[in-house]
Amino acid sequence: METHKQLTIGLFGFGVVGEGLYKVLQQTPSLKAELKKVCIRHPEKKRNAPAELFTTSKEELLEDPSINVIVEVIDDADAAFTIVSTALRNGKDVVSASKKMIAEHLEALLQLQQETGRSLLYESAACASIPVIRNLEEYYDNDLLHSIKAIVNGSTNFILTKMFEEGLDFKQALILAQQLGFAESNPKLDVEGYDAVNKWTFLLTHAYGIKAAPEEILFNGIQNIQAGDAAVARARNQQIKLVAQAQKLQDGKVAAFVLPQFVNHDDHLAFVKNEYNGVVIESGFADKQFFYGKGAGSFPTASAVLSDISALRYQYKYEYKKLYHHTPHELSNDLYLRVYVSFDNLDLIPRDQFAWIEEWHAQEERKYLVGVIAFGELKKNNWWREGNTSLILTPNPVIEDVEIRKLKKRSLELAGLV
Amino acid sequence: METHKQLTIGLFGFGVVGEGLYKVLQQTPSLKAELKKVCIRHPEKKRNAPAELFTTSKEELLEDPSINVIVEVIDDADAAFTIVSTALRNGKDVVSASKKMIAEHLEALLQLQQETGRSLLYESAACASIPVIRNLEEYYDNDLLHSIKAIVNGSTNFILTKMFEEGLDFKQALILAQQLGFAESNPKLDVEGYDAVNKWTFLLTHAYGIKAAPEEILFNGIQNIQAGDAAVARARNQQIKLVAQAQKLQDGKVAAFVLPQFVNHDDHLAFVKNEYNGVVIESGFADKQFFYGKGAGSFPTASAVLSDISALRYQYKYEYKKLYHHTPHELSNDLYLRVYVSFDNLDLIPRDQFAWIEEWHAQEERKYLVGVIAFGELKKNNWWREGNTSLILTPNPVIEDVEIRKLKKRSLELAGLV
Repeated sequence: METHKQLTIGLFGFGVVGEGLYKVLQQTPSLKAELKKVCIRHPEKKRNAPAELFTTSKEELLEDPSINVIVEVIDDADAAFTIVSTALRNGKDVVSASKKMIAEHLEALLQLQQETGRSLLYESAACASIPVIRNLEEYYDNDLLHSIKAIVNGSTNFILTKMFEEGLDFKQALILAQQLGFAESNPKLDVEGYDAVNKWTFLLTHAYGIKAAPEEILFNGIQNIQAGDAAVARARNQQIKLVAQAQKLQDGKVAAFVLPQFVNHDDHLAFVKNEYNGVVIESGFADKQFFYGKGAGSFPTASAVLSDISALRYQYKYEYKKLYHHTPHELSNDLYLRVYVSFDNLDLIPRDQFAWIEEWHAQEERKYLVGVIAFGELKKNNWWREGNTSLILTPNPVIEDVEIRKLKKRSLELAGLV
Repeated sequence: METHKQLTIGLFGFGVVGEGLYKVLQQTPSLKAELKKVCIRHPEKKRNAPAELFTTSKEELLEDPSINVIVEVIDDADAAFTIVSTALRNGKDVVSASKKMIAEHLEALLQLQQETGRSLLYESAACASIPVIRNLEEYYDNDLLHSIKAIVNGSTNFILTKMFEEGLDFKQALILAQQLGFAESNPKLDVEGYDAVNKWTFLLTHAYGIKAAPEEILFNGIQNIQAGDAAVARARNQQIKLVAQAQKLQDGKVAAFVLPQFVNHDDHLAFVKNEYNGVVIESGFADKQFFYGKGAGSFPTASAVLSDISALRYQYKYEYKKLYHHTPHELSNDLYLRVYVSFDNLDLIPRDQFAWIEEWHAQEERKYLVGVIAFGELKKNNWWREGNTSLILTPNPVIEDVEIRKLKKRSLELAGLV
């Protein structure tokens, strides 16, 4: 059988994930990987590991020829990029958990991998314990992948679950999430959708060969969702989830977005509660598949990092098959979304931007409408992010451009206008 | 990037899966795989493909040097083994969907792969559209995989679902399954658990490096489950599923079996309805993961075959890491199971074989008990398969030998006997 590479690891970062990894490595003797050095920023902190393991000099790791794997689990995306790119250039394989860094530097990282021939793995950066990247990369052929729909952020899912199951309002739920360690002390990254869209950028690369910056993808978080929205969902036997979605359209392009969405109670994503993540893949012949697991936390993340380390023993690399070996897909703006919008003040809703409005509910405490709006309008305008307005997609929100044109033609016919 | 192998395929079998594959290949141009010849047994049957594609001579495929991939989706396990072994020896890579053949000839197939250096892939043979083999092979380190619990047979799951949700009795549900094409006209293989245990043998190899013949694994089907058992389950807010399970014990050995099991309503496997399959993996640090998808049917099976074909372009092989690169685990008999047994005639129940009995229900129409029995007793004796007796595991059925010894010691102490 194939020989394995002996791995000697230099680790950047010894926070919850780094320390988790240290413990996991100690309990995984079969891996035969040696952790040689750990680079940290704060040497004064007490660590649960021998002092001689630590250094504050990154060169001690990056310039050490006996270290052939750099594992990077630090919080600072810019520093992470410097470390990862230097390591690749110095001929080392790299495992990274920095979704923000990967999302923002995807293009450069793709090029570095091609130039150096080294492997960069980052399974832990999306859905932690769920092996979603490798499955998208290896298992689903481009031609067959109809759609992928996922809950990729555990903190927001935890908050939404608590709003639903325990009737907490957004702020109470957020505080609980922070107390339990599921949300950062500055929760903006999670709550406003930045973390989810970062993950979605590179999942789109592995799913469809799409190279898009986070800002090219329509996204929002859950910061505007109110108890009244949750009540509407409950009355419809639905839940609200922050759903990252990508869907192939009839013209072969892909619609992609990360937005709150009403989810039917029998939808697979409704099964995903608390800090868990879930991925639903629809493909041409396999029908629906569903992957579920812990998406955050030190040990789930560390175990995903470990799986990447383990794969390096067998010289595993992402081949980015959808990008390099197929015709990559493009993102589309030519679609419509069916949305629910709740608001305090009707004057702030630009009704003319809607193709049509199907429901008005103006009596209740929380007013809302359900309507169909062009994707491009949502991308261009910001009214739906502001004030007390909250926009949530309906189940199956994507309406293709061709369908709209058919519907318009039909209504003109019915009106006797053509 | 790596060059790909140009694939020229010889296909054995043009039943529902073979024809499904033919259609899938036509709709997957990016694969650039050419289907050169299809070997069939009945040339007189009308086929939805050009006549020149077909032959009845297996040599025309196996001896054709331009064919570098043999795909085998026939029903006859012995013929399949001849085809697969000849193909490997003739230097061809092979994709097979024959679980029975793989289970029965696992040892020989392992050796053939080592001798010839060719690749034999069979993702479609277990859980069809769920990429369970590749995930077990690539993703879960031996040291960390605590347990794997799965529904691997769609037909029995369909029957059990109908018994539960529509109150059908076993025979009615079976007839419905046959009408819908989810069960063979001779349903013994599915219903009596043979199909499930066949799949479980090689999943155990990929999960734990265990090489066991189907007859070494304790198994049963659902043929004895009665409406009364379903009523007991409903009263306890549980369902009955045919569960394949493997669990690491404290001594490092593995308990493995395929038996009907009561499943709590919030268990992931309770989510798996009708003809679907599901796999729950518990690992040391990633916690619980859950994979779900269609386990049978022509297109899900064909799509899994297609994924294997696609992987051959990149020279993918199973490395059987748990077997060759780790210390493989052994099967254990040193454990106890907590079981429910329902029966008509108490005289047929060998009460002395139980370590203890926790519940007796003799009043109802259907009598039953709940007790703890040594695994070895179940393996040795057949009373629980016979007549109107039905044995179903309770949730979390495994009790380790060491726990029993502690409990025994404690009860002797309590009785003042030590």
